[in-house]
Parts: sequence; C-alpha cells; structure tokens
Amino acid sequence: MAAAANGAGGGGGVPRPTNPMVTPLLTDLYQFTMAYAYWKAGKHLDRAVFDLYFRKNPFGGEFTIFGGLEECIRFIANFKLTDTEITFLRSAMPTCEDGFFEYLSSIDCSDVEVYAIPEGSVVFPKVPLMIIEGPVAVIQLLETPFLSLVNYASLVTTNAARHRLVAGKSKNLLEFGLRRAQGPDGGISASRYCYMGGFDATSNVAAGRLFGIPIRGTHSHAFVSSFMGLDDIIDRTLASSDGSNKCEDFVSLVQNWLARIKDAGSLRGTFRETNLSELAAFTSYALAFPNSFLALVDTYDVMRSGVPNFCAVALALNDMGYKAAGIRLDSGDLAYLSVETRKFFRAIEEEFGFIGFGKMNITASNDLNEETIDALNKQGHEVDAFGIGTYLVTCYAQAALGCVFKLVEINKQPRIKLSEDVTKVSIPCKKRCYRLFGKEGYPLVDIMTGEDEPAPKVGERLLCRHPFNESKRAYVVPQHVEELLKCYWPGTSSEPREELPSINEIRSRCMGYLDRMRPDHMRRLNPTPYKVSVSAKLYDFIHFLWLNEAPVGELQ
Amino acid sequence: MAAAANGAGGGGGVPRPTNPMVTPLLTDLYQFTMAYAYWKAGKHLDRAVFDLYFRKNPFGGEFTIFGGLEECIRFIANFKLTDTEITFLRSAMPTCEDGFFEYLSSIDCSDVEVYAIPEGSVVFPKVPLMIIEGPVAVIQLLETPFLSLVNYASLVTTNAARHRLVAGKSKNLLEFGLRRAQGPDGGISASRYCYMGGFDATSNVAAGRLFGIPIRGTHSHAFVSSFMGLDDIIDRTLASSDGSNKCEDFVSLVQNWLARIKDAGSLRGTFRETNLSELAAFTSYALAFPNSFLALVDTYDVMRSGVPNFCAVALALNDMGYKAAGIRLDSGDLAYLSVETRKFFRAIEEEFGFIGFGKMNITASNDLNEETIDALNKQGHEVDAFGIGTYLVTCYAQAALGCVFKLVEINKQPRIKLSEDVTKVSIPCKKRCYRLFGKEGYPLVDIMTGEDEPAPKVGERLLCRHPFNESKRAYVVPQHVEELLKCYWPGTSSEPREELPSINEIRSRCMGYLDRMRPDHMRRLNPTPYKVSVSAKLYDFIHFLWLNEAPVGELQ
Repeated sequence: MAAAANGAGGGGGVPRPTNPMVTPLLTDLYQFTMAYAYWKAGKHLDRAVFDLYFRKNPFGGEFTIFGGLEECIRFIANFKLTDTEITFLRSAMPTCEDGFFEYLSSIDCSDVEVYAIPEGSVVFPKVPLMIIEGPVAVIQLLETPFLSLVNYASLVTTNAARHRLVAGKSKNLLEFGLRRAQGPDGGISASRYCYMGGFDATSNVAAGRLFGIPIRGTHSHAFVSSFMGLDDIIDRTLASSDGSNKCEDFVSLVQNWLARIKDAGSLRGTFRETNLSELAAFTSYALAFPNSFLALVDTYDVMRSGVPNFCAVALALNDMGYKAAGIRLDSGDLAYLSVETRKFFRAIEEEFGFIGFGKMNITASNDLNEETIDALNKQGHEVDAFGIGTYLVTCYAQAALGCVFKLVEINKQPRIKLSEDVTKVSIPCKKRCYRLFGKEGYPLVDIMTGEDEPAPKVGERLLCRHPFNESKRAYVVPQHVEELLKCYWPGTSSEPREELPSINEIRSRCMGYLDRMRPDHMRRLNPTPYKVSVSAKLYDFIHFLWLNEAPVGELQ
Repeated sequence: MAAAANGAGGGGGVPRPTNPMVTPLLTDLYQFTMAYAYWKAGKHLDRAVFDLYFRKNPFGGEFTIFGGLEECIRFIANFKLTDTEITFLRSAMPTCEDGFFEYLSSIDCSDVEVYAIPEGSVVFPKVPLMIIEGPVAVIQLLETPFLSLVNYASLVTTNAARHRLVAGKSKNLLEFGLRRAQGPDGGISASRYCYMGGFDATSNVAAGRLFGIPIRGTHSHAFVSSFMGLDDIIDRTLASSDGSNKCEDFVSLVQNWLARIKDAGSLRGTFRETNLSELAAFTSYALAFPNSFLALVDTYDVMRSGVPNFCAVALALNDMGYKAAGIRLDSGDLAYLSVETRKFFRAIEEEFGFIGFGKMNITASNDLNEETIDALNKQGHEVDAFGIGTYLVTCYAQAALGCVFKLVEINKQPRIKLSEDVTKVSIPCKKRCYRLFGKEGYPLVDIMTGEDEPAPKVGERLLCRHPFNESKRAYVVPQHVEELLKCYWPGTSSEPREELPSINEIRSRCMGYLDRMRPDHMRRLNPTPYKVSVSAKLYDFIHFLWLNEAPVGELQ
C-alpha cells in the first residue's frame, strides 16, 4: 500500500484518504436530505445495490483505465461523521428531527460491501467499475465522494496511458503539470495517476514524497536571466569526480572549451558570440550539480547560444570526470531544433573524439500533448524525453469523465433508470461481470450476467448480446475467463478482502493490460470499439422491466 | 476573512491554507535545485522581483476575474519547512551540501513583499496580478504554489462570472459540480470561486462549511426509483404548518388531489396514469421536508407523470399550510419542457384558484453551460434557476489559464525574457499599474509605468503605448485613476498591509466591477479587447533592453 499521508486511520488498518479534505461532508447536500427522507420513511436500512460506471470512453478513444479505487476504500474504511460535522449538518438542515442526527452519528461502513475491478485495469463503458451494496441511506452518502475520487483519477490515468502509447516505450515521460492543474489536489492526483498510467517521473515534490514517485527537475528561464555575466560566479573551483584533483578556475575551462568549439572545423561559423549571462547560469548550475547537469537552452537562442554554451560546460565537466545529463528545449520548432541539436552533438563527438556525446539526452517541453507528439513522430525528431504539463493534467482535450452511480437493486428488487436517450438507460440487477479471451490471447468481449447465473466456462459456447440493440449478438467460445470485480470491502459478507497493491504494482499491471489488448482497439485513428455485452437471460430481463416501467406514448 | 479550516496558523494571525496539502513541498523540484544553485553561487539573497500574470483571456472572452489571492497570502504567512520535509529533500537531493539544508530550515517569508490586485477584480493580460519581491531563492520556491493557487481559481471564477452574465441577474445559479471536478480540492475550490464569480449556492456541503456558502439540494433519480409504490409509506401523518391540526392520511389527500387534477377542465386528457413509485417518492419527500418540497420530475416522464405527481403533492401540502418549492428538470428539451410545465402550473392556478401557483420555481440541470443557457434564452424558456456542474467546474471550454511567473528585476537590474513569439516577451522592471477611467465612468485603459515614474493625474493628458506594437498608442485624459496593486504582505517594507476581505465582500466587489465595465468588452460575441498599455518611458526602455539582449540574426 502507498505511503499514508494521514497515519494509519481507523478501519481495518486502512489509512485515511490522502487528502485530509476528503471527509463525509465532501458530498452533495441532497445525499443528506435524501438520507433524511429515507429515515423518515423508515427505509434507510433498505439494502440497495448501486453500480458505478461510465457511458463513453474519453478522448475519442475506445478504452479507459480505472483509477481512484484505493482512495475510495480509504474513504469508507474511515467513514465516520464527527460531532462538529453533525453540528454543521444540524444548522444546514434545521427542520430535521434529532433522531436523524443520532442515526448519522452512529453510521459507518461496516455493513457496506464494495466489489471493484482492480485499479489500473483497462475498462469499458457500461460495465460497473464498482458495485456498492449496503443500507440505502449510507450508500447515497458515498455517491458523490466516490464519483469525485474516481472520475478525475480514471480520466487522467487514461490520458497518461494515451500519451505513453503515442510516445512509445523507449521515451522518458515526465509530468510537469502542477502549476496548471485544477487546484493543489488536482496537481497531486495528476502526478500520482499519470505515473500509474505510464509516466516515468513528476516534477511535483509533494507527490514524490506522498507516493514515492521519482521526481525530476533542473532550472527555469528565470535562473538563466538572473545572471548578469560571468563575474556573478564567485567560487570558481570544482573538484574532480574522483576527488583526485581540483580545477581552480572552472569558468576559464568552460571559456576555453567554448573557443575550441567555435573554431572546430565542422562547427565553424554556426554561431558567433553566445550570451554570457546564459553561460554564467549554466556554469553555475554545473558547479552546483556536476553529476546531473541538464540545461534549458532556449532563453536566448537555441542554436546560436544555448547549445554551444551547454556543450562548452559539458566538455569542461568531462575534463573533471563528470558526465552531463543533457538539454531541455522549451519553445520553437521542436522537431527541427532537436534534429539540429543532435547534429551539433554528433559534430562534438567527432571533432573532439568524445564517444557517446552524440547520444546526449534531449528533453522537450512546451505545451505538448498527444497530438503534438504524434505530429513530431511523423516529422521525425531527436527527442528522448517529453515533459508534459497543462494538456496532460487538465485533460484539456476532454476535461471530465462522466462516471455515474445508479441504483440497480433495492431489497432484492431490480431497478432500472429509463431515459429517452437509450445510452442513459441503466442495466438493472446486481450483476457479475467477466472478460472473455480468445485464441490469440486477446480479450474479446466483456459480459454481464445476473448474480445467480453460472459463470462462463472455457471452451463452452455462450451467446453475448448487446444490452439494448436486439440485432447485435454473437456466440463466443472463450479460451480463458476472468471475473472482473473482486471484493475490496466485504462488509458483513464472508468474502475475503483483496489487498490494496502498491502504486508500482498498479502501474505494472496497467502497462501489462495495455500490452494484452488487441492493437486495433488502442490505435489513435478510428479505433475498433471493444464489445460489452449481457447474457441472454439478463437481456430478456432488462427488456421485460423496461416495458413494465415505461409509459405508453400517445400521439395527438 | 473566511472561516479557517486549519486553525489560526502562524504568520501574523493569517490562517493556514484551506487545503492542508498546500505545503512548501507542493512545488516543482527545480525550484529546490535552483535554490541550491543560487545558494552555491552565493546569489540566494539577491533581491528579485517577479511578476505573476497571464497572456490571454480565457473562453474567447476579453476579461478575466482574479481569484486565489487569499490562499497565496495564507501560504506565505505560514511558509516554513518542517524537519520531515527537510529530511525528504535531503534524500531527493543527495549531492547537496548540508549548509543548504540548514539554510532551507531557516527560511520564511518575513523578507518577502507581495503586491496584488484585489481578489475578485476584473483583470487583463500582461498586467501583473501579483508582484513578488524578495530573496531570489525564496521567491522561486513560491512560484509553483502561487501559480497552482491562482491559475484554476481565476479560471473558474471567470467561468462563473460568464455564466452569470449570460443567465442574467434575476436567475438563481447553483453550482452542482463536485462529482465531476478534477479531484476533491478541484471540487472545493470550484464551489468557493463559483460563488465568488456570481453563483448563488452550491451542492457541496464541505464548501458550505468551509466558506459559509449557501448550500442547496433535494433528491436524485435513485431516490425516486428506490420506491416500489405507495405501500412503501408507513407513517402517513402530517401535522399542519401552524400545528393546529393533523392529517392522518396524507397519502390519500395526495391521491385525491391527483384525481381532481386529472378531471380538471383544461387539464383533462393531458395525462393518464402517473407512475406510482414516483408518487410515493414525492409524497415521502414532502413528508420529510414539507417546508421545502422540491421534486425531480423526469425519472419516468415529465409531462405525463412527474409534473402531475408534483402538483398533487404540492396541492395537498397547501391544504396543510405548506408552500412547495418547485421542480427540477434534468433531461430532455429544457426550453420546451419548462414552457409546458409553466402552462400546467398556470392551469392549476386557474382551475383551483391557487394564487401564485403559476409562478412555481422551475430549476433546470443536465449538462448546462454558457452556450446552452444562451441557446435557451434565444428559444424562450421558463426556467428560474440553473444547476450547473461538469462544464462549469472543469472549465470544459478551456481547462487551463496560462498564468506565468517571470523575473523582471534582480538587484535593481531590469531583466527581460525574450521569445520569437512576441506575446511571450516579458515586460521588464518593477512596475506600478493604474486603471484610467473616462468621462462615462468606464475604465478606458490599464497602464504600466516604471516604479519611480509619477502617477497618472486626473485631467492630465498622458500617452499610453502598446508594449510591443509601435504604431498602437493613444492619448488619454483620465477622469479618475486607480492604482491597481496594493500591498498584501509588506515583508520588511513599511507599507501598511491590506486586510483580506470576506468571501461575500469579494463577491460583491466582483459583481460591482463587472457592472462598471463597458458592455462591449463583456459581450459573448466579438467582444472589444480592453486596452493594456505602458508609459512612453517604459516603452523606450523595453525596446532598448530587447535590442541589447537579442542576438543579431544571420541569413545563410
């Protein structure tokens, strides 16, 4: 389990939610007014089953990654209204009877059951990500916090996974979004879930500390422009990497290298005077971090100042036994500049016989997203690492995932939510959900059945029906069957409780799931929809209930 | 000052940030690596001035509302790295010298000065929202948290204000976005800043408690479908509003009214059998909240079930001396349904002589945004209140505001950040900023001057220049002059410190500012850009510095 922000908490050793603001009051008022109406009607203990699911994959794609489960479990494990919270609720609902507030003080989630697909799984519309069962008044109170914890987590994990797919496995992906995220918690969640979805590191120190995610960062333009010139550097000494000698004037060493680069055959004439305040900033940064010198090269001019200055410092560091880490480009034509920079690095390698300099790391940032990385791939580029912020963490292309929380059964009576829009009709009954795999090892279809139907069997032919379209159906002979939802909070049932895995386990699982999908579901352009179905028996029941509940129209 | 979530805090009686996750570690790693490089170079105490500003108004508009200032001040007032935080930083930056961590342990913001435009003000691109001055290493550490606290706050406040402008002053605006917000803090911030930008209430209980914002809510579809029929109602008694009598069977009273409505002359034939589980849910809700009965009427069929059922319950409540609060529509054609519902209410008023029933409140929700409200206005509708969620809180139309934090001066030396993209060039120098008002009382132009230039004077002609476009300039004779930035954190200066106003004061100020703007800047379609300028002296200086810093190109 991930490092806990708030100590061990109460319920069964499960820590409290990472964000201390996630309390039972972080919900819509109507959950409390409904709880009161249930209580007044004596219905508050009615046993209800709700499905949490979404209706459409985000970003024009055909898959989603489920995130946010651990926080939901932390929330219910520690669910308890404090006296102060009850006092506030009394003032907010002044007409409610005392007995109700006594009831509210007494509730926890010990009689709630939560079944969920493992966090980090590839998931699809309509299939419940979570099934929540318990006293109706309590389950309603969980609706808003659960949605708030799952919606953005799943959205941003999916966004990160899409960036990983387009960038390819060999690239380093760095999340730089904290400053543009939707509030501080948006930033912390983004860092966590982007890592889960396949990023390698974040710039966010707090997220590094909370979740053990690798953190990265070098310097900004302001650092460069804070230097006026080389005179700003007072202490010019640098000890060699192995401690065997000491350079008394590292600044002069850098200047000598800059002169040599300028005169080197194939580089002669590519640049004139570089910016000396930039050179001072780079040198200063190298003196502070000789082992991990990475320079932002676009403050003045990438090819005529930043890259030559970087190379001079990198070559001087090399003399002292240190290996520079690379450069970052943060503006301009990244394809062109990365290619030109690579040529410059290769020329340095050749001119000075510096083996490996041509492979120096190039990081690119500046308003990157899935589309721009795709475009860079098509143009050809020499970028090794992408730093991605705004578009990644705010999910700019689609800022919300519409997860919903629907009643599907109460006191063993199946319930359906109708709508003129068929995509908004809910699938009734407490269900079981399975993923069926084909001969080639790919998942073929997800199927939902009634709770008491037998599980699909390997090698046995099974009819899978579209839940709402009667002509869409297919026979499947699964080669492998996985039940999708496991018990993460058993309540009063006797189910064993699934452990919450570490963030690195979830991340590996997510990468593994993505690898196992048939590629045409995952491609950016016109992906094939993955099939989601119901059993023949559930299909018939849905349509029986539908006709029963829907009023007959009347044309006038 | 708003109610504090976390007690009084340390600095000068200013409470801690609302979200306990807002700590000095909530920053990019490079702020710490730069701080180390400054420290190593002996530059960490260099006195730096940074501007926090944005480059472009969001949502295709020509104005922005500034939000987030109070949280920034809370942050710096309590800025102090704990021992645990220092320990984490040591592990994250293992090559840094001990002295640096001792320095980090020692810093606070007592020598930082913060000047800012008052929160809730109408603001424009390029003009600094905040000017932050202090030791360069400390100010860098503030960059990311300040941006994280201001970016989303300003974006969502602006979004709320735009919704208010399109809805008009007479409508009730309710923020319902918690479940779709980008994380729990996104939800809490959204509720706070939407209220600031002109909303009337939120569904978010935690935000209600933290900030004293009015909270609203009734019931969901799940509540309706949790009832099977009228037999679900066990206790059918209702005491009258004045306590003088008691109805032993309120359910029968409702049923009687439903029969009377069905038979009433002008309503006959408009509906047949209504859904009885819906009628049970409404009756039950009315028994719980007889004083504030508001029903969600679209679970089955608005006109053939929901509205007649609501009216039956409302009329029965009226018999007992209670006034129903209204209905909510959450699907379908809201313009059409609101108009039809209004007709139904008016018919009830006439048929039963129920004065005022025709004016019953109609709330609409379901994926509303600025565009759909505008479209509803054009079609004609009868909606009194809008409940707005996803599009409002995620700022779906533009999920990020690109605020930046740029070095403009160090040790009294002006600094400029160049870019091939002229809109990205920063305006150097510590500045003063004024808003100049014309004869009709509207703001005409904002002007930035050097720190030591005389302030613009009422009645005195002044040349205002576009900062980068030499042909754009205008003489202005201001009728009124306001200095925009005030001192919110004086540091070691002798400036008096501005008090932080309450959320209601900020909200009123914001509404007042919006009223004072010339309408053509505020309209949705092709708004006129508001002018932002620099003094002639500052203009000349910018261009002198620019030519000095930019390398001369070479065509080959």
